[in-house]
Amino acid sequence: MLSYTFENSNTPMYEQLYTFIKDDIISGELPADTKLPSKRNLADQLSVSVITVENAYSQLLSEGFIYSLPRKGFYVSEIFSEQGYFDNYISGTDSSASLKNEKSKSSTSRSFPSDNTDKISVDLETDNGTCIDFSSNASDPATFPFATWANLTRRILSEDRDYLMKNSPSNGLPELRSAIAAHLRAYRGIVTDPENIIIGAGTETMYSILINLLGHDLTYATENPGYEKLHMILDANEVKNVRIGLDESGIIPSLLETNQVDIIHVTPSHHFPTGITMPIRRRYELLSWAALPGRYIIEDDYDSEFRLSGRPVPALYSIENSGNVIYMNTFTKSLASTIRISYMILPDTLARKYRDSLAFYSCTVSTFEQLTLARFISEGHYEKHINRMRTASRKKRDLLLKAIKESPLGSISEIREEQSGLHFILKLCLDTSDESFVEKCKKQGINISPVSESSFMINYSSIPIERIEEAVNRLNICI
Amino acid sequence: MLSYTFENSNTPMYEQLYTFIKDDIISGELPADTKLPSKRNLADQLSVSVITVENAYSQLLSEGFIYSLPRKGFYVSEIFSEQGYFDNYISGTDSSASLKNEKSKSSTSRSFPSDNTDKISVDLETDNGTCIDFSSNASDPATFPFATWANLTRRILSEDRDYLMKNSPSNGLPELRSAIAAHLRAYRGIVTDPENIIIGAGTETMYSILINLLGHDLTYATENPGYEKLHMILDANEVKNVRIGLDESGIIPSLLETNQVDIIHVTPSHHFPTGITMPIRRRYELLSWAALPGRYIIEDDYDSEFRLSGRPVPALYSIENSGNVIYMNTFTKSLASTIRISYMILPDTLARKYRDSLAFYSCTVSTFEQLTLARFISEGHYEKHINRMRTASRKKRDLLLKAIKESPLGSISEIREEQSGLHFILKLCLDTSDESFVEKCKKQGINISPVSESSFMINYSSIPIERIEEAVNRLNICI
Repeated sequence: MLSYTFENSNTPMYEQLYTFIKDDIISGELPADTKLPSKRNLADQLSVSVITVENAYSQLLSEGFIYSLPRKGFYVSEIFSEQGYFDNYISGTDSSASLKNEKSKSSTSRSFPSDNTDKISVDLETDNGTCIDFSSNASDPATFPFATWANLTRRILSEDRDYLMKNSPSNGLPELRSAIAAHLRAYRGIVTDPENIIIGAGTETMYSILINLLGHDLTYATENPGYEKLHMILDANEVKNVRIGLDESGIIPSLLETNQVDIIHVTPSHHFPTGITMPIRRRYELLSWAALPGRYIIEDDYDSEFRLSGRPVPALYSIENSGNVIYMNTFTKSLASTIRISYMILPDTLARKYRDSLAFYSCTVSTFEQLTLARFISEGHYEKHINRMRTASRKKRDLLLKAIKESPLGSISEIREEQSGLHFILKLCLDTSDESFVEKCKKQGINISPVSESSFMINYSSIPIERIEEAVNRLNICI
Repeated sequence: MLSYTFENSNTPMYEQLYTFIKDDIISGELPADTKLPSKRNLADQLSVSVITVENAYSQLLSEGFIYSLPRKGFYVSEIFSEQGYFDNYISGTDSSASLKNEKSKSSTSRSFPSDNTDKISVDLETDNGTCIDFSSNASDPATFPFATWANLTRRILSEDRDYLMKNSPSNGLPELRSAIAAHLRAYRGIVTDPENIIIGAGTETMYSILINLLGHDLTYATENPGYEKLHMILDANEVKNVRIGLDESGIIPSLLETNQVDIIHVTPSHHFPTGITMPIRRRYELLSWAALPGRYIIEDDYDSEFRLSGRPVPALYSIENSGNVIYMNTFTKSLASTIRISYMILPDTLARKYRDSLAFYSCTVSTFEQLTLARFISEGHYEKHINRMRTASRKKRDLLLKAIKESPLGSISEIREEQSGLHFILKLCLDTSDESFVEKCKKQGINISPVSESSFMINYSSIPIERIEEAVNRLNICI
């Protein structure tokens, strides 16, 4: 019988329960395939509400610590494999290779075309003011904190003139790096030395630095499907790169061996575009792959701020100690796509290498915007902004889902990945081809991109809430 | 006898005279080695002042259209060589190779060490508030137009919210590109389509784009001595690169052949750090070298705004029609080193290639700063700022030169390249080694870098005018 003592702290009950169970699973106290009590039973045992147990189980499920069998209940996952991490995989280069011991119930299609999935869309350059763009990651002007930003800018331009004229260190202003480190500690459980943080003008700039830092003669790998623009960057830099297939848990480690990969880019918290959260077991497998010298995992945590339910999944960077994970995140998603500020955290050895060999590069972000953002974070505006964005996103999403459901679209569609808070996937039962649907949409002033057969990415971040209904009406004309 | 009719126009007399003579030289009306009338005689002939002739001759001299022989007078240069451009050169890899038909009187030393000359210095990261940094290109806070900038920012943040949230096209905001094109036409005689302009976060970012655009398997060349950081960038990108020696006219074209160079970076208007202005003849030779397919000249026009005397020398980009010159310039020098905005102008074929293959890259400058700068230029503030900066620079330079002259330093020093308006070279007759002088300076809180044996770069841009005297006093302690 599970028995835990809750603390009277600021940590929510469900989170405490989640941690208790998780720790027991990691320590082996709860061995693989142990059946957990039903939600109601555990709630009764611990004298907590069913909702508390439900939230804890749901978090454990999403991180892969437990699995559920229909009409049977919840079971502890086997998070460490005994025979070594790749024995459990069917090798091969087939992207549909899957776990022998398959537990996930996800039915996400794995036949994504690879050319239409671009996390950050190339700008439309259309002047059609009435265009509805479901493929753009641009921000809705209504959500950007213009007043606060203007205030901070005004203050800085009047009070910090000397500081603004001083060249930023190559890896960014100390004030901004400290603010980011403090934020990550408080909201993401990541502990890092601000010296290991590198600030740059967008994720793409980070990659060009990384290629300089790690080397050109290595094999880089990306998820397939995945962040397609990364390929274009690697190709443009004439660096060898391969696409690695996924199974239901994310990227398949055995394929990394087969393809002699050195560097892998992954989105473990929330895979783009399928939405897979990499289960804890796969995380350990990936870390164990990376433990060999010269191998690195680039962990792209691009939308961890926007999960609409549950605690964010712990970052790979905070699990591991071997120094083989490079953490990457961006303010282009959480603040505005048009303010180009991203950052990465390097493991100690790479941070030293950067200082020794690449610190001659000037930081690519102006001190004006670095300092504004630093104050924005350290004075608490960023946290408030994220909360407001989350609320607004949830509201917009709910309105959009409701409008779809109540319209003719409702009967021919299925929604996936609606927890992201930034986009969801709309699977449609169409009479026509995807191409002709996209064409029809274009005529209605709607920009929409397929992510797989008859599945479309609905990125609603750029669409004002008052135009949601109109957007759905226009979509309905196209089916 | 020279006979010209002056127009009653806005163009200054000296500039009209310069153009008349230049056109006659290019057309062959004035053949090579023709002796020109003395200044006084020509002034009398044309009924203009001696100063007008002096200014015209001096501009023609600096651009290499004429040469002077001591106590003899001024002669027309041979600007086109008949046997092809490289017959006139002594080949070899020796950087001191010089023109057979040597006319320049420059005695600039050619034994620059290559590791200390960095156009944009890596930041000192010192907290010593009283440090005097002669090696920093940082801006003096007193010269930055904070009030105007703050005004424009405030207006934009309140009036242009929708525009600010729209992703910038890959090559930059149309509004900024148009403003730059208009500025270049008016003040630099460069006519260009704004579509060919690419905006990026600093010159270093431009290079990483250029390497992506031109290719990694080419041989890149830089001037030796020259902009040393460029080498570090090319090395970090694992691109083959060679240093090409200079003679008194600048980079030696025959060495480009010997070294099988494909791409050459030059600073023809004002070579860094020697200050050589590339004579017109060498310019044509370089253009003729570049005329073969696949060859490109990157023309770095980094401080054309700051010549303290004479008209700026015409850009290579505006001389040629073959489409082999890439023009590059930056606001990091003319506005603030901490606002990271640079640009380049691509010839048509490369601009098309960029649109086809690299437009997936997001522009690295935020829309906020792009729009602020666009308004700053188009509303005339940039022009005013440049004029103010030039006046301030001249004043600061004069004060600095006077203080040096009147101090003990005066008797052991020689000044070169004082027309740049951003820095000059101080040649010292020292008892000690350069290293121990630099060490002594460091102890006095002075940061100073040698550019060649007993010659030091004096970059006074970051030093407030009220500290000039103190700076010279401290220098005097070190000799």
